[in-house]
Amino acid sequence: MSNATIELLHKHGSVRNYKVDPVLKQMVETIVAAGQRASTSSNMQMYSVVATSDQDKRNRLMELCGGQKQIGLAPVFLAWCADLSRIARICEMQGYDNESGYLENFVLSVVDVSIMMQNAAIAAESLGLGMCYIGAIRNNPQEVIDLFDLPNLVFPVSGMTLGWPEKDPPIRPRLPLDAVLHWDVYNKDDEQHLKAYDQEMIATGIYKGRQVSGGDDKPEAVYGWTEHTARRASKILRPHLREVLQKAGFAMK
Amino acid sequence: MSNATIELLHKHGSVRNYKVDPVLKQMVETIVAAGQRASTSSNMQMYSVVATSDQDKRNRLMELCGGQKQIGLAPVFLAWCADLSRIARICEMQGYDNESGYLENFVLSVVDVSIMMQNAAIAAESLGLGMCYIGAIRNNPQEVIDLFDLPNLVFPVSGMTLGWPEKDPPIRPRLPLDAVLHWDVYNKDDEQHLKAYDQEMIATGIYKGRQVSGGDDKPEAVYGWTEHTARRASKILRPHLREVLQKAGFAMK
Repeated sequence: MSNATIELLHKHGSVRNYKVDPVLKQMVETIVAAGQRASTSSNMQMYSVVATSDQDKRNRLMELCGGQKQIGLAPVFLAWCADLSRIARICEMQGYDNESGYLENFVLSVVDVSIMMQNAAIAAESLGLGMCYIGAIRNNPQEVIDLFDLPNLVFPVSGMTLGWPEKDPPIRPRLPLDAVLHWDVYNKDDEQHLKAYDQEMIATGIYKGRQVSGGDDKPEAVYGWTEHTARRASKILRPHLREVLQKAGFAMK
Repeated sequence: MSNATIELLHKHGSVRNYKVDPVLKQMVETIVAAGQRASTSSNMQMYSVVATSDQDKRNRLMELCGGQKQIGLAPVFLAWCADLSRIARICEMQGYDNESGYLENFVLSVVDVSIMMQNAAIAAESLGLGMCYIGAIRNNPQEVIDLFDLPNLVFPVSGMTLGWPEKDPPIRPRLPLDAVLHWDVYNKDDEQHLKAYDQEMIATGIYKGRQVSGGDDKPEAVYGWTEHTARRASKILRPHLREVLQKAGFAMK
């Protein structure tokens, strides 16, 4: 059961090597407009995106996002933001108290911008462009806020590099469908699926000789997805997020 | 600048009227598998989806999600979940401490599941199906957790109805592109765009005779998107979210 759209979705891989060719501004507009067509909670559209092709800004972003070279290479960087500032401005314009200081409003805006940016990603890929999400935009979110002059109540949820792929990106296997799709009730008896996926991921060779921190006393033969994932989950990731969000005005009551 | 995929994205509208025809299980599998092809942070795949076609469960979900009739009508309901329980199981299996109790890990899993479910939505629409996100799944999240027997660290971020559309859904205008796409720095001087959008939304007739709570002393003529949105933002929405999430084990430090 397939078609051209589903085939496109299955061809997705994150692109980290880009040609030097620029991306037309009109193309970015087409992609973001396609993003806007995604569903949005109560049509509130609690999102914004800041685009830049500026080499200095991209170099700075590269520093801020873990030194990923692709950020300097890709002709366009997009910062996809949860945006509660627009509704704050609207409440002021129309004379209402703004009661969007709850965790719900934060979650809602994160979902809104996430489904928007995924629509945009698909539109980009349908045009032959490549992209890669940059979660590392949350490594130094305050500095990103300063760089883009984001007002209070705007938070960069994810970055994205955009450009023309140097080559087709690798496509990684995913967990067996039965590990993520549950019928009627959640089935947590998934060890067989995880073990099968371990073997599949080991067979790709992705972990071969890979630099990993911690737990290196285990033989490489058993280093599969579960071991890789457990090591990652044992590291504290971006513990500053709450503080930066609160400074940015997200009360998350 | 368009193509068949971008045209498909532009045809999206939320479907709330469904035919009685069932959706094959194989079709749901195709859609979720397409969802899995979306990017996922460090390939951690911190998501799960619970699907049901059971009429009793759908009736119960209808009650829990603000009485939306479409939930009883649509042959399939999908509960898209942020899932940190799988990595907790993996840490236990592999003998590592689990340090994913930070707000970052919650945000990451919400983004992961959101871009996955949007991929799935597009796959569904490419097959001629219709869908509608059900944010109201967060109206009574604890009851949804109980209904689907979700373990600790699994949270239903969004519901989705899925089925064959009775008719083509209405497509709503969105904010002018210049209100959401910023170049190099954020531009908060957007009143002209908001006013233009007000006129566009009024012209659709969507607000005509619409039941709205609060602020009804204002003449209907000025009731546009900004007024509609300000009224919504002045209501407290789902203040229980933090408590339910913490009970579900999301420490969000």
